[in-house]
Amino acid sequence: MTQNIYDDPDFFHGYSQLGRSVHGLAGAAEWPALQAMLPPMHGVRALDLGCGYGWFCRWAAEQGVRSVLGLDVSHKMLERAKASTGQASVSYQHADLEQLNLPECSVELVYSSLTLHYLADLDRLFATVHKALVPGGHLVFSIEHPIYMASRQPGWIVTEQGRKTWPVDSYQLEGPRVTNWLADGVIKQHRTVGTLLNALIKAGFVLEHIEDWGPTDEQVAAVPALAEEKERPMLLLVSAHR
Amino acid sequence: MTQNIYDDPDFFHGYSQLGRSVHGLAGAAEWPALQAMLPPMHGVRALDLGCGYGWFCRWAAEQGVRSVLGLDVSHKMLERAKASTGQASVSYQHADLEQLNLPECSVELVYSSLTLHYLADLDRLFATVHKALVPGGHLVFSIEHPIYMASRQPGWIVTEQGRKTWPVDSYQLEGPRVTNWLADGVIKQHRTVGTLLNALIKAGFVLEHIEDWGPTDEQVAAVPALAEEKERPMLLLVSAHR
Repeated sequence: MTQNIYDDPDFFHGYSQLGRSVHGLAGAAEWPALQAMLPPMHGVRALDLGCGYGWFCRWAAEQGVRSVLGLDVSHKMLERAKASTGQASVSYQHADLEQLNLPECSVELVYSSLTLHYLADLDRLFATVHKALVPGGHLVFSIEHPIYMASRQPGWIVTEQGRKTWPVDSYQLEGPRVTNWLADGVIKQHRTVGTLLNALIKAGFVLEHIEDWGPTDEQVAAVPALAEEKERPMLLLVSAHR
Repeated sequence: MTQNIYDDPDFFHGYSQLGRSVHGLAGAAEWPALQAMLPPMHGVRALDLGCGYGWFCRWAAEQGVRSVLGLDVSHKMLERAKASTGQASVSYQHADLEQLNLPECSVELVYSSLTLHYLADLDRLFATVHKALVPGGHLVFSIEHPIYMASRQPGWIVTEQGRKTWPVDSYQLEGPRVTNWLADGVIKQHRTVGTLLNALIKAGFVLEHIEDWGPTDEQVAAVPALAEEKERPMLLLVSAHR
């Protein structure tokens, strides 16, 4: 059972204040890059693994998908998602992604935003997703970058000389990382870049595009705080097809 | 024209003292992992891009390759390689990998060890290599890891509390990195993990295995200094096929 931190009251409260929660996809700086990796959406059957408030599902419906099913482990998130969604092509369902079963060859697209780093067993999920996709179907996801997660003390180091750098240690030590982000004791699963990509290959996927996301100059000009995301890779974006 | 630092007297002298120069493949801790990524060698035609002293070429000859051609930009390295090699299946040739031309569908394996990070234009080389491989042929290489190369000041940070960490900054700033390793002014080319892997995909390769190399526990027990390579990813190993 994956930790359901999103139903922790402190976490949920903090999360609901984030730019991406208030402004949806427009509040997620990586969205333009991730969107560019999506296949044409019209008429496809899609799944959103870790749908949260349903921002992607509603956007997908606007693009004319045939159907989109949002899955999440958080009851509170699903409640909010359902209340915010009026489109008939969107549905939501409670699911633990580590126990997920899906009908074979049933969707053209599986999408996931910043969810997979919570899962200890990705091999099972990737195998399930691969079988659920039609041949040629796409998996497109974002995940916290292994370099962002690896350190025992993940936080900028600023030296007396004013040098600012991101620390990397424990990189080869795969497994849980406990952080205090929005709430205490949030558990994420660190794996190397190679382990993540090899899990996709082993499940039968062909890798199409890998991007250590960083902000554009225009994004930094608009939101100067984003500049630090040019210094370290915080997110990894991946697309692959069956 | 790629910088030919290996013909710099100071660099050449320093390089010739390294474990991997004295002991060959057995002196390179990543060799067992890289070797495990190679296809069966018997009867194949192989290329070694950046062959150095010819250790890999001689090993390949021992495995029964049909032929192996070692290419290098350094005249001194090639001289030493030729003097050390007696097998008829091995030949050497001077080449600037950024200007390389190869006959199409002429080899089953292209190998490269710790060379590609010196090249500014990988797209051209990957396209050339892809065409030179027979369908199903393999490209297997090691390269300095982007996380090892990114920082403006690549060196361990040790805090007053004794915490040791590897610095990451300037990650999105792709391009030359000048270091003083064995000689002053060694120029390497930093690119993100995504840029490297996407260049392979764009050239038509199918990614097979990606490994942020780290030492095994047995290696650390035998050579305790290797322990720090568990903390940061220093090398990236990649295999792909046409």
